[in-house]
Amino acid sequence: MTHTVESLIDHACLVVHGPDRQGLVAAITALITRNSGNIMSLDQYSDNAEAAEFFQRVVFHREDLKVAIEEIEEDLATTLTPFGVEWTLTDQSIPKRMAILASTSDHCLLELLWRHRRGELPVTIPMVISNHTNVAEDVRSFGIPFFHVPSQGADKSAAEARILELLKGNVDFVVLARYMQIISEDFLDEVAAPIINIHHSFLPAFIGAAPYRKARERGVKLIGATSHYVTKELDEGPIIEQDIARVNHAMTAADLQARGAYVERAVLSRAVQWHAEDRVIRKGNQTIVFTDRP
Amino acid sequence: MTHTVESLIDHACLVVHGPDRQGLVAAITALITRNSGNIMSLDQYSDNAEAAEFFQRVVFHREDLKVAIEEIEEDLATTLTPFGVEWTLTDQSIPKRMAILASTSDHCLLELLWRHRRGELPVTIPMVISNHTNVAEDVRSFGIPFFHVPSQGADKSAAEARILELLKGNVDFVVLARYMQIISEDFLDEVAAPIINIHHSFLPAFIGAAPYRKARERGVKLIGATSHYVTKELDEGPIIEQDIARVNHAMTAADLQARGAYVERAVLSRAVQWHAEDRVIRKGNQTIVFTDRP
Amino acid sequence: MTHTVESLIDHACLVVHGPDRQGLVAAITALITRNSGNIMSLDQYSDNAEAAEFFQRVVFHREDLKVAIEEIEEDLATTLTPFGVEWTLTDQSIPKRMAILASTSDHCLLELLWRHRRGELPVTIPMVISNHTNVAEDVRSFGIPFFHVPSQGADKSAAEARILELLKGNVDFVVLARYMQIISEDFLDEVAAPIINIHHSFLPAFIGAAPYRKARERGVKLIGATSHYVTKELDEGPIIEQDIARVNHAMTAADLQARGAYVERAVLSRAVQWHAEDRVIRKGNQTIVFTDRP
Amino acid sequence: MTHTVESLIDHACLVVHGPDRQGLVAAITALITRNSGNIMSLDQYSDNAEAAEFFQRVVFHREDLKVAIEEIEEDLATTLTPFGVEWTLTDQSIPKRMAILASTSDHCLLELLWRHRRGELPVTIPMVISNHTNVAEDVRSFGIPFFHVPSQGADKSAAEARILELLKGNVDFVVLARYMQIISEDFLDEVAAPIINIHHSFLPAFIGAAPYRKARERGVKLIGATSHYVTKELDEGPIIEQDIARVNHAMTAADLQARGAYVERAVLSRAVQWHAEDRVIRKGNQTIVFTDRP
Repeated sequence: MTHTVESLIDHACLVVHGPDRQGLVAAITALITRNSGNIMSLDQYSDNAEAAEFFQRVVFHREDLKVAIEEIEEDLATTLTPFGVEWTLTDQSIPKRMAILASTSDHCLLELLWRHRRGELPVTIPMVISNHTNVAEDVRSFGIPFFHVPSQGADKSAAEARILELLKGNVDFVVLARYMQIISEDFLDEVAAPIINIHHSFLPAFIGAAPYRKARERGVKLIGATSHYVTKELDEGPIIEQDIARVNHAMTAADLQARGAYVERAVLSRAVQWHAEDRVIRKGNQTIVFTDRP
Repeated sequence: MTHTVESLIDHACLVVHGPDRQGLVAAITALITRNSGNIMSLDQYSDNAEAAEFFQRVVFHREDLKVAIEEIEEDLATTLTPFGVEWTLTDQSIPKRMAILASTSDHCLLELLWRHRRGELPVTIPMVISNHTNVAEDVRSFGIPFFHVPSQGADKSAAEARILELLKGNVDFVVLARYMQIISEDFLDEVAAPIINIHHSFLPAFIGAAPYRKARERGVKLIGATSHYVTKELDEGPIIEQDIARVNHAMTAADLQARGAYVERAVLSRAVQWHAEDRVIRKGNQTIVFTDRP
Repeated sequence: MTHTVESLIDHACLVVHGPDRQGLVAAITALITRNSGNIMSLDQYSDNAEAAEFFQRVVFHREDLKVAIEEIEEDLATTLTPFGVEWTLTDQSIPKRMAILASTSDHCLLELLWRHRRGELPVTIPMVISNHTNVAEDVRSFGIPFFHVPSQGADKSAAEARILELLKGNVDFVVLARYMQIISEDFLDEVAAPIINIHHSFLPAFIGAAPYRKARERGVKLIGATSHYVTKELDEGPIIEQDIARVNHAMTAADLQARGAYVERAVLSRAVQWHAEDRVIRKGNQTIVFTDRP
Repeated sequence: MTHTVESLIDHACLVVHGPDRQGLVAAITALITRNSGNIMSLDQYSDNAEAAEFFQRVVFHREDLKVAIEEIEEDLATTLTPFGVEWTLTDQSIPKRMAILASTSDHCLLELLWRHRRGELPVTIPMVISNHTNVAEDVRSFGIPFFHVPSQGADKSAAEARILELLKGNVDFVVLARYMQIISEDFLDEVAAPIINIHHSFLPAFIGAAPYRKARERGVKLIGATSHYVTKELDEGPIIEQDIARVNHAMTAADLQARGAYVERAVLSRAVQWHAEDRVIRKGNQTIVFTDRP
């Protein structure tokens, strides 16, 4: 749903994650009340049958949040420590800073820029970085800085170093919008921010390169796209969102790619939005996603 | 999701509806905690921009619920009265009693009976009533009583009286599974239980009779089905669920009807399940539905 | 599916419409063969149960089509006259000229411009006309002329005259991409080209203004969009394509509008593509659409 | 779409498959005309960019088809031999004979029986065979013979021999409706009829056993089902149809299985219908499917 920065003023989002204990929900909601908060939405999940882990996302409204937030955080530290859970409290009116890495394809990139301009993504976009220049003008027409970092040859370390230099201190998360370079483990360690990727298949089917060609060869009747967090295992990171499109025998691999582009841009946009809204909690190699899907 | 009666033992569902007030959520969750309950799921909604009404559904687990439920109800009465809200507390292990009214079509009826047999609908089905006899054998093969109440002629009052006699005291809600008789206002007053209907169009398009024929004539590219509570305004009651299927120029009105049958049975089944699970709250001529849709 | 102009060279599309007669399909396919054509795809439909009307679309490949097309047309005239059918033959490598009329909303407009740039719409876009100026820069960044034709006051005749002046002789069809002015009957008569509109509801539900607000008030669980040809009856023209999105109680009318924008842009794009590819045949107030949907 | 046997009287289906040659379509349609046929629908596909193979399905109406069919077949043999293509001509009013093999699950089995009873599957069902007895009564209530062939122990050859004995000469194709026994290569050789299976995953993801558990572990957001022809390579045969359902973190493997059942029954039903209507043509390990999807 749409959310201008104005509509999110004085809205805090509390995310709690840890062992499920009786009384935890009551402790959290009592805390919000005594800090003059009014709960706007509350999602929770306990994997009781498995590890008895508890996950919660609460959004509450609190007049003059900016004044009160430190006090609320102190109360959280005192209240939740006995429960042994982790928590984060974010001021929803402060958008996350999102960098986008792209290559030549523009469909995912432009969709993100356009949704951002419409006020549908609660982020700022400090920069777009590409190893190509073809999207530069489009990006700048949205008023967003574009940096070209070429990436030829086998040794990508110089390019990665340059990208890290640009990102360092400037971003809260990174989106790979059909960025066609493999990210090194060193880069992952250094960047120290979540990275969201879009893979052009319905993972775990067609892992690796050329999924549309493989899909065509296998004769599948549906193609898909998967947005996931990047980990050291390629195409194996926690899945945030997936969707599919129907295809048939008459479509070439190029047709699948063209049709798939629409799935990719939609799936990546939803994953980015949910991450930006603190709706995604990682649990090992899985995600808990408290979506806003109706 | 599936739920055998066993899995719902010691699970209570609390539905709260009324003016939104600060502290209400905290009061409710504190109450659950002090009554030794553990919150399993919690959904809430406030229409802040409109009437500032608050709607909440909480499911909590409580050992020996049957022993404690009266005490919890007393606590609820004491705690929630100051807030001016309405509430209901139900033991989730006690299935609602659902009567089905049908005519000649079997698709909605059999789908409900079959889902029930699979343990996917938390209800008992004390009876199926039809103004025809063609489905009698199918119904009885599920081990469910079938009653034939013919409904010829202009005066339906005798038939309605007979149906009321059968229902009285035996059911918690009634489902019209393509029951092709108009329900009188008197019947609605007398039955004093919610009635869920399935209409074979995407309401409010094609209100009234023969919606598939009308859809064909208008040349629509989608047909739909709508499940709603029955009120004195025909086809105007609060909508619980809707869905659609794609159609094209080559399909006759009979083809639309055949394809629509699949939408109808799915839409009605979801509406019935959500009603049975106390997920639907009426708000004037609208519904708040805390679905389990992933 | 994608189609660069190159891939459509030497491809002809024959559309036939008229009374169904035995031997008609054989006559057409024999004609294509004796004119050295190779049939690439063939769709047909007979509404036998109704008016016995016949509709066919054949795409065939013919080396040196441009040289042969006049001869083929003569053969068609000779061959098909006895059958009493109408026909059109188009060289698929000659894109149709499409003008877009827009107002302040950019979602449908930009989607069309972007799909065009990707080579997914077989059209040229000689101009975009708007009664506002906010989209001017976006349009021109795609290298497409933008004309501002203000439309204040009750009398729209001057604005319409100016638009007609711009369109006359320059376009094959016109798309209203959320153009918020009512088109007069005189304009329809004068422009003498098909006009495709996108209506922001699942017609015939919520005809007229403010459909998202009406949908919210009625409490529907799905919203839709409808693309149709414009006729003198507002919102009543032949429907080309429709689709829907799921919504719920928590979404405001503004949320519905934001979510609906994604349905609108997809539905309008498909309708435009199918029209441009001669896949849509009008039959009274209905359409026969030989889609490429897999 | 629905089709009673009555509506298919005097309807023939011609399927042609072989090298694409200019004039082939014209030769076929001319043949139909000179044999007094009227083409009702025609689908074709050429994989020009690959092997230049041609696939066509034509349904035509011909008064007194039963009288004329031999003559038409002779004409086909004479006309099509020079083109080097394979062809089959079937009288659409003669339903294919379909055997169903099942185990304990009833969802796919009952859906097929019920669709058959509604007249939506143009088949006869001479028998249902199961290695369990729990579905016997349900099957017989549809008036269809049920045979129990137990299959304990490592050696399945006796069971397979018994099944072959039942099938031999009595069926045109076999459907595995969640039949949980592995089919031996010998059985495949002996039965000499197409076998259609439903696999409970979106192949090629989660090949092999326990796909719902694997899907849960991988944290996918969609589950699927795949209907395919059975070949000697398990789960690797030509795919006929696939579909998916959305799932989330809160659903257990049992929940996925319950939700997946609805996808399975729909996917298998469509595959069966299309096979029965001669809409599926095998091409190596792929299928050409001329669906009736609108």
